[in-house]
Amino acid sequence: MSAADAFEAQTLCIIGTGLIGGSLALALKQNGYAGRIIGAGRTEQTLIDAKRLGVVDDYSTDMAAAVKDADIIFISVPLGAIKPVLQSIQPAVRADAVITDAGSAKQSVIDDVREVFGDGFAQFVPGHPIAGTENSGVRAAFAELYQNRRVILTPEPYTSEQAIDQVTTMWRLAGAQVSCMSAEHHDKVLAGTSHLPHMLAFALVDCLNNLEDIDEIFQYAAGGFRDFTRIASSDPVMWRDICLHNSAPIIEMIERYQNELEGIRQALQGQDGETLKQIFERAKQARDAFTGKT
Amino acid sequence: MSAADAFEAQTLCIIGTGLIGGSLALALKQNGYAGRIIGAGRTEQTLIDAKRLGVVDDYSTDMAAAVKDADIIFISVPLGAIKPVLQSIQPAVRADAVITDAGSAKQSVIDDVREVFGDGFAQFVPGHPIAGTENSGVRAAFAELYQNRRVILTPEPYTSEQAIDQVTTMWRLAGAQVSCMSAEHHDKVLAGTSHLPHMLAFALVDCLNNLEDIDEIFQYAAGGFRDFTRIASSDPVMWRDICLHNSAPIIEMIERYQNELEGIRQALQGQDGETLKQIFERAKQARDAFTGKT
Repeated sequence: MSAADAFEAQTLCIIGTGLIGGSLALALKQNGYAGRIIGAGRTEQTLIDAKRLGVVDDYSTDMAAAVKDADIIFISVPLGAIKPVLQSIQPAVRADAVITDAGSAKQSVIDDVREVFGDGFAQFVPGHPIAGTENSGVRAAFAELYQNRRVILTPEPYTSEQAIDQVTTMWRLAGAQVSCMSAEHHDKVLAGTSHLPHMLAFALVDCLNNLEDIDEIFQYAAGGFRDFTRIASSDPVMWRDICLHNSAPIIEMIERYQNELEGIRQALQGQDGETLKQIFERAKQARDAFTGKT
Repeated sequence: MSAADAFEAQTLCIIGTGLIGGSLALALKQNGYAGRIIGAGRTEQTLIDAKRLGVVDDYSTDMAAAVKDADIIFISVPLGAIKPVLQSIQPAVRADAVITDAGSAKQSVIDDVREVFGDGFAQFVPGHPIAGTENSGVRAAFAELYQNRRVILTPEPYTSEQAIDQVTTMWRLAGAQVSCMSAEHHDKVLAGTSHLPHMLAFALVDCLNNLEDIDEIFQYAAGGFRDFTRIASSDPVMWRDICLHNSAPIIEMIERYQNELEGIRQALQGQDGETLKQIFERAKQARDAFTGKT
C-alpha cells in the first residue's frame, strides 16, 4: 500500500468544523478519501450542520470520545482554544495517532503541546494552511479552498518523520502545496503578510466608523475600498487570539509600518512630491513583481 | 429634441485618453453616442493607440486645435497637469462649450479654473467618477467601467445649470449615477474612502519591501494580501498629484489613523484581548453593514 492509499483508509478527527476544518473534510472527500471523518467541537449545532452538509460522517461534543479511534487529529480552532482542546484529548489520544493543527501562529501552539504532552512529543506536526476567506463557519466551507494554496509545516527536530509524511500526504490530497520552515521564521513572515494587513484593515474601518456621516462615506467607497477592507470582515475572536499568540512579531511589524506611514505624512506636510512619487513607484514595482504583472 | 438626443449629436473632446478618458469614450459609443470624439494629449503614441482601439474618431497633440470645435471638453489628466491643460485650451475654447474633469480632488481644480478662466466662470462643472482599477493607460480602458458607479459633481453657486445638465446627461449615458455635493465635503469624504487606503497600501508594500527575504515573504502571501495591496499597483504620478492637491484632508485622515493604529499597538503590548476584540468586532460590523452582508 502506498502512503496515500494508507492515508485514505484512516480515521480522521477534525476538532473545529468551521471554514478551515470543514473545507479540509470536503476537499479530502472530493479527492477520494475513503476513511471515516469524525467532527468534534463544543457547539452541537455546528456539528449537526456539519453532518447535514456532508462534511463529517459522525460527531461528538465529547472531545476524548471523538479522538479515541482517530489515526490523525486535525485541530482547527482559534489559537486561544488550542490548549484546552489538547488538555481534553490528551488522556484519550492513541499513542500512534498523529496530531496537527491550522493555527496562524506556530510557536505558541508548539509551547501549548509541550505543556500538555511533555517535552519532545514526536507525534505533533505544527501546520498552517495559507488559505481562508473573510467568511467563517461550516456553511462557508468549500472543497476548493486549498487548491494550489500553500501549507507551511514547522516541525521541531524531535518531530517524527512518519508523522510529517502523514500530514503532508493529507494536505497534498486536499490540493495544497506543502513546505517546511522554522516556527520562528513562519511567525515573522506571517506577521508581515497576514497579521499586519489585518490590523491595518481593522484599524481603517474602525477609524472611518468614528467619523460623522459614516453612512454617506461608505456609500461613496469604490471597488478599491471594498477589496482593501475585505479582511476587516474576518472573525474577531480568531484575530484577537492571533494577536495574543504572536504579539512580538506583530508589534515589530506595526512599528516598522508606523515609521513608514509617518514618512508619508511628513512628505505630505512638506509638499514633497518627489519623495511621495519614489515611495509609490517602489511599492507599485514590488506589488507588480509579486503578482507577475509586467 | 430631448437633452439626451441633443447631447448625442455633440462633439466631445477628451484630454487625456487613459483608463478614465478612454473608458468614457467607449461607454458613450456603446450606449448610442453618435457625436464625434476627439482625443487630445501630449503623447502621440497614446493617441494613435486610442484611435486604433476605436476610443476616439480623431486626435491632436495640439490642445487648442483639439478643443476649438468641441461642445463639451472632458479633462482626464493627473491633477498636476490640469492647470497647464487649462492654460493651453483657454484661448481656443468656444464661449458656449462646457468643460468638466475627472480629478480625484475638487477644490484644487476649482482654484485652477478660477486662475485661468477668472472668477465666476459658469461653464466649468467639477466632476469625479468614483471608478477605476489599479491599471492605467488606454489599453486598460473598457466600456463598462462606469456601469452603476457613482459620479460626484461639485458645482459652485455660479456654475451654469445648463452645463450641469449636460455633464449629468453625459455620465448617465455612460451608465453612471450622478450626485452633487460641495467640493470641500467631496475632498474630505474621498480622503477617507480612497486617498487614505491608497496611502496605507503603498506604505504596506514599501514597508515589506524593505525586509530581508522579501521574495519569500511575498511568496507566502495569501489572497487577502493580494486584495489588500491591489491599489498599491496604481499610477504613482497620479497619486503623487492627488497627495499634493488634497494634502490637508489626507494629513488629517492619516493622523486619525495613526491614533487608531497606536491604540491597537498598545493593546497588543498590554496583551489586552478585550480591547482588540472590541475593535475587530466594531470593524467587522461596520464593514459587513457597508457591503450588505448579514
